[in-house]
Amino acid sequence: MKRRDLLRGTGLAAVAAGLAACGAREGGSAGTASDVRLSWKMVTSWPANLPGLGTGAALLGEMITRASGGRLRVRVYGAGELVPAFEVFDAVSRGTAEMGHTASYYWKGKAAAAPFFCAIPFGFNAQEMNGWLYEGGGLALWRELYAQFGLVPFPAGNTGVQMAGWFNRELRSLADLRGLKMRIPGLGGEVMAKVGATPVNLPGAEIFTALQSGAIDACEWVGPYNDLAFGLHRVAKFYYYPGWQEPGPTLECMVNKTAFEALPDDLKHIVETCCRAVNDAMLAEYTARNQQALDQLVREHNVQLRRLPDDVIAALRRASEETLEAMAAADPFVRRVYDSQRAFRAQAQAWHAISEEAYYAARR
Amino acid sequence: MKRRDLLRGTGLAAVAAGLAACGAREGGSAGTASDVRLSWKMVTSWPANLPGLGTGAALLGEMITRASGGRLRVRVYGAGELVPAFEVFDAVSRGTAEMGHTASYYWKGKAAAAPFFCAIPFGFNAQEMNGWLYEGGGLALWRELYAQFGLVPFPAGNTGVQMAGWFNRELRSLADLRGLKMRIPGLGGEVMAKVGATPVNLPGAEIFTALQSGAIDACEWVGPYNDLAFGLHRVAKFYYYPGWQEPGPTLECMVNKTAFEALPDDLKHIVETCCRAVNDAMLAEYTARNQQALDQLVREHNVQLRRLPDDVIAALRRASEETLEAMAAADPFVRRVYDSQRAFRAQAQAWHAISEEAYYAARR
Repeated sequence: MKRRDLLRGTGLAAVAAGLAACGAREGGSAGTASDVRLSWKMVTSWPANLPGLGTGAALLGEMITRASGGRLRVRVYGAGELVPAFEVFDAVSRGTAEMGHTASYYWKGKAAAAPFFCAIPFGFNAQEMNGWLYEGGGLALWRELYAQFGLVPFPAGNTGVQMAGWFNRELRSLADLRGLKMRIPGLGGEVMAKVGATPVNLPGAEIFTALQSGAIDACEWVGPYNDLAFGLHRVAKFYYYPGWQEPGPTLECMVNKTAFEALPDDLKHIVETCCRAVNDAMLAEYTARNQQALDQLVREHNVQLRRLPDDVIAALRRASEETLEAMAAADPFVRRVYDSQRAFRAQAQAWHAISEEAYYAARR
Repeated sequence: MKRRDLLRGTGLAAVAAGLAACGAREGGSAGTASDVRLSWKMVTSWPANLPGLGTGAALLGEMITRASGGRLRVRVYGAGELVPAFEVFDAVSRGTAEMGHTASYYWKGKAAAAPFFCAIPFGFNAQEMNGWLYEGGGLALWRELYAQFGLVPFPAGNTGVQMAGWFNRELRSLADLRGLKMRIPGLGGEVMAKVGATPVNLPGAEIFTALQSGAIDACEWVGPYNDLAFGLHRVAKFYYYPGWQEPGPTLECMVNKTAFEALPDDLKHIVETCCRAVNDAMLAEYTARNQQALDQLVREHNVQLRRLPDDVIAALRRASEETLEAMAAADPFVRRVYDSQRAFRAQAQAWHAISEEAYYAARR
């Protein structure tokens, strides 16, 4: 039987060699990549396939699945399908889902600094936000903040400058904001409270009913492309700009830290690269679709398009500075984030004054 | 010997099974991915590691290599290392290199429509360019144009609004442009010729010497971040804005069509996704670095920062429209591209007037 054992041995050795070889061919930094075959859940704060936000999340899942050759398959769930819109943070932190697509300004109850990584009133537009996050130290601060929750955040989309929102009556001056019940989340809500309004936070899907029932008098959602999809023009006629509260909100992809760190290097890079590609893709979609939707709102639905009165803009800007300063004074991490943003904003604002702004003026 | 054969057979069958298994595990759309092990050359029109452009090309090569787990290794060559700056198009078309990182406005000699996919005088800024390329039909037209050269183009970077350029004397009015010899490529050069200047095209690396020797009186390169790196302030003192000629130039990654189509699906997706990620990354880098460089130019090097005189801006805008119209009248493909851009620009301009522009004004 010796010879047979020897031969069988040869056979098994060859099998081992074969398997080793395919690991090697797969190669690179991820020696174990060929053994990986994962299915991940992505929970989101958006209705499934909502234009822009929902389709952006869907695109991210598709990109990761394709770029990984199916080794990391991502299934995307709309708000409420697996967990409610505002439970995405806990679900991914716990590991109920490996990843989520949402916005960090929903999590100010978890960490006071969280909203600063999404949108800052009178802060960065999309281009400036990306500059700060990737080249100005913003992403490092975000990673540091989320690490304590077992989360790894990635910028994964931007809507560009939003609209100031929908109001069921005309705003003639600052006085008209007093006592106004408005759906406005994040830091914008804090600022609205400071000028006398009553901010309310609701998931997108609940805005229409709240405005229709009179539970709220006004709301901000995103911009024409998304607001038309929600039919907000059917429950409010006055549509105000510009979106001082969200001049360039970053959407976030959050990944459970344990799940992320268990990935081979190539899949880590694929997740990170796909998030960055979606960060580019979503802004392009909003840039292309907003005006088409706005035309429809104004021409077909007789929406009244208005610029916020000057005294309202001035009061909101003042209240924004006071609100952000007070938050920074109350929380050392907010202080670090806010100081980092102010330093970068001074620079970006000076550059954009002679580049983007001067160009818009020259083109007119 | 029968039994031994049988056993050896088992061994070989097991080897085959092992190899088949790793193909399957690799799985997804790219069944053959585990067999792929490629090394690609990326030739560029930039000095190796030039801030922004060169580092963007390097980042792209690195991202593809990492995301592919080393199955597609990309080696990046600076201008002149493998082929000169302006031979990138031919080199990738021939297959001397599998890919290139450059700008389509260097190729107007190959196809009159090529420059329209990089920068259009008084045209799109970066955000609008991405909107048109990805959501307004631009990329499809670009792919159609390049297919006849055996090339597949991908947007892979944007500098944002550039500067109008460096001049060795002050511009007081339009008359000062007459007879001026200026390095300015692409459509901006055509427009300059129309207002009486003499456009010259030179690779970036040759600008300094040409300006120093007096072979040219003026130049545009990119913006503060790149211009400081080239030391252009040492050979010209007047620095003008805004960059009407390149309000949001898209850099291109071109891939040899045969090489691209030979890739398994997952590597195709990785190349495309990494280009899109670099498209996001490069703009963030310029947004963060330009003002730092401008501060240094103005404070340390006493550069004279000036806005173009109104009559110069008005004349250049008029000349731009005439130039683009004439090109469209002379070439049916340019007509299609230009009409597509004009339709998109009317929309994007209207939207950005109440979003980006209105926000910049409210923040001031």
